[in-house]
Amino acid sequence: MNINDLLNHTSEWLKGSGPNADIVISSRIRLARNLEKIPFPHWAGKDKREEVLKTIEQALSGLEHLKQGVILRLAGMDNLDKQFLVERHLMSLEHAQKTNYKAIAVDSEEVLAVMVNEEDHIRMQVMQSGFNLFEAWNIINQIDDYLAKGLRFAFSPEWGYLTACPTNTGTGMRGSVMLHLPALVMTRQVDRVLAAIAKLSFTTRGLYGEGTQATGNFFQISNQVSLGRSEPEIIDSINGIIQQIIEQENQAREAISAKNKPVLEDRINRSLGILKSARIISSQETAELLSMLRLGIDMGVIKDIDRRRVNELFIITQPAHLQKLESKKLSSEERDVKRAELIRNKLNI
Amino acid sequence: MNINDLLNHTSEWLKGSGPNADIVISSRIRLARNLEKIPFPHWAGKDKREEVLKTIEQALSGLEHLKQGVILRLAGMDNLDKQFLVERHLMSLEHAQKTNYKAIAVDSEEVLAVMVNEEDHIRMQVMQSGFNLFEAWNIINQIDDYLAKGLRFAFSPEWGYLTACPTNTGTGMRGSVMLHLPALVMTRQVDRVLAAIAKLSFTTRGLYGEGTQATGNFFQISNQVSLGRSEPEIIDSINGIIQQIIEQENQAREAISAKNKPVLEDRINRSLGILKSARIISSQETAELLSMLRLGIDMGVIKDIDRRRVNELFIITQPAHLQKLESKKLSSEERDVKRAELIRNKLNI
Repeated sequence: MNINDLLNHTSEWLKGSGPNADIVISSRIRLARNLEKIPFPHWAGKDKREEVLKTIEQALSGLEHLKQGVILRLAGMDNLDKQFLVERHLMSLEHAQKTNYKAIAVDSEEVLAVMVNEEDHIRMQVMQSGFNLFEAWNIINQIDDYLAKGLRFAFSPEWGYLTACPTNTGTGMRGSVMLHLPALVMTRQVDRVLAAIAKLSFTTRGLYGEGTQATGNFFQISNQVSLGRSEPEIIDSINGIIQQIIEQENQAREAISAKNKPVLEDRINRSLGILKSARIISSQETAELLSMLRLGIDMGVIKDIDRRRVNELFIITQPAHLQKLESKKLSSEERDVKRAELIRNKLNI
Repeated sequence: MNINDLLNHTSEWLKGSGPNADIVISSRIRLARNLEKIPFPHWAGKDKREEVLKTIEQALSGLEHLKQGVILRLAGMDNLDKQFLVERHLMSLEHAQKTNYKAIAVDSEEVLAVMVNEEDHIRMQVMQSGFNLFEAWNIINQIDDYLAKGLRFAFSPEWGYLTACPTNTGTGMRGSVMLHLPALVMTRQVDRVLAAIAKLSFTTRGLYGEGTQATGNFFQISNQVSLGRSEPEIIDSINGIIQQIIEQENQAREAISAKNKPVLEDRINRSLGILKSARIISSQETAELLSMLRLGIDMGVIKDIDRRRVNELFIITQPAHLQKLESKKLSSEERDVKRAELIRNKLNI
């Protein structure tokens, strides 16, 4: 397998299936791990970082999940490929910058992704479609157990797993759920809802993680505290919070539908009409219109397009994806034209 | 024939044919005539107005053009029918108000329309599709000659035909041309062009005549002076002015096309996409989007829809037309829904 094989593949988290798939795009569990007695990447010298890289590459190469996958060093990797992996949510934007002594490992189904020498020696994630954190936890827990056999992780009986940033210390786990909340946005309740969960130590981010804005009404919600409780307890508390948000989004959808269904249907159908006909379209407008289209599918207004096709469009209309699909560099203006063309081709069937 | 027969008929002026039909919707010649020795309608008493009405009805009934047409008194006519005739440009808004002792005559092709006891005893118009004032003049001139055999028109050897408003005295003729000038609007040149022709004693009006705004980039241009020159001379001068405006609109279209064709194509296709998909649409938005669609057809961007269908949509999406098509009164909100439905049905073929 190589990176280009991913181009025509639907990532696990984009399948549009799984529990509550009408509101929950995907569930993700991430674990931070570090090798004992070696400084964290930001403090380690070149030799140490190379040593870490080799040690972890070696351990990963025995992993069953990666038999059909790739383990790639980032140094020398094409910028477009790095951006492509970021757009697919397989690695962080931070990992794509300053790429010396870094690696990324991805399985062919894009369930597992492992970053080596990002903020911690190991940052691994498992993604599942829909509202499915426990399943993601089961998978990543087995992978963690396997790696722990060959690697000695920095662990303190008092604190748990040690990490570069103290907020990750303890379980080293972060669970996050990507939610599509158009009705809470439309009814202007989303700020209130997100402010409430912030008080409970949950953070909200946009589609691309830390520091990104919510586009297309997507919100990524994750736990802030990873210390003092077991992983299943943390997942339970995330599930409880997400369940409440799902309930509120459902109520908002019902309220809009009861109050002004024709206006909603008009907006959804116009969004589809523009997507099917535009000749130039920005990624921002694309995200907004696809969000309305997805709501239309989820509410039964649009019946002949499935959720998976919309999810895919969210991803493949991004800059690096467009350029890899065209096999050449494109200016921003060229991308807006190609994006519109791609969307028309995928929707006018 | 009765009024409802017009509902599914394409008016002469909407055929989308004739010279310069890509810019000129229609050409119209209107003549004002009054019976001699009888006060103008606004000054005449009831008996006199009834006498005028009977005399003119009698004269019109012999007219070959009206053999397949209707001559209708407005008193007691349904308000929706009156609005319907105004929307079809067969009579003025003024004529539809205070309807006593008034009549309207229309032929089955909607080439000829005669208002009795509007501002003058007779206001007759002949419409032709495209840029075709002389043809309209030839037709109306014959009708005028025929009527002059049976009626004695107020005429002064010095002043010509006498009319209620002095601006019509002389030939009693007004020639007007309905132009579609989207490129001059887009390039913000239209105000300059219209200001220039105003200095040459031409007036510009919107789609529905005096006092109406230009909607859908339609402009109706007509001569202000009807005195001191023969009808063909006046028509010649109108033709010269219109020819120049056509030239300027064509140049503006070429300039937009040369400079930024993709942006234009995007706007045109989005307009069509919205028209094909909206569930609620106002008449104002409809006019704007249809204007872009018409430009798309005229510039060869849209190939599978003809001009005539767009012209018809301009007319049948108006309030009275919508209500007559549905055979019932509709609120403004209901009309916006029915309008969207009608447009979808006519464009999604």
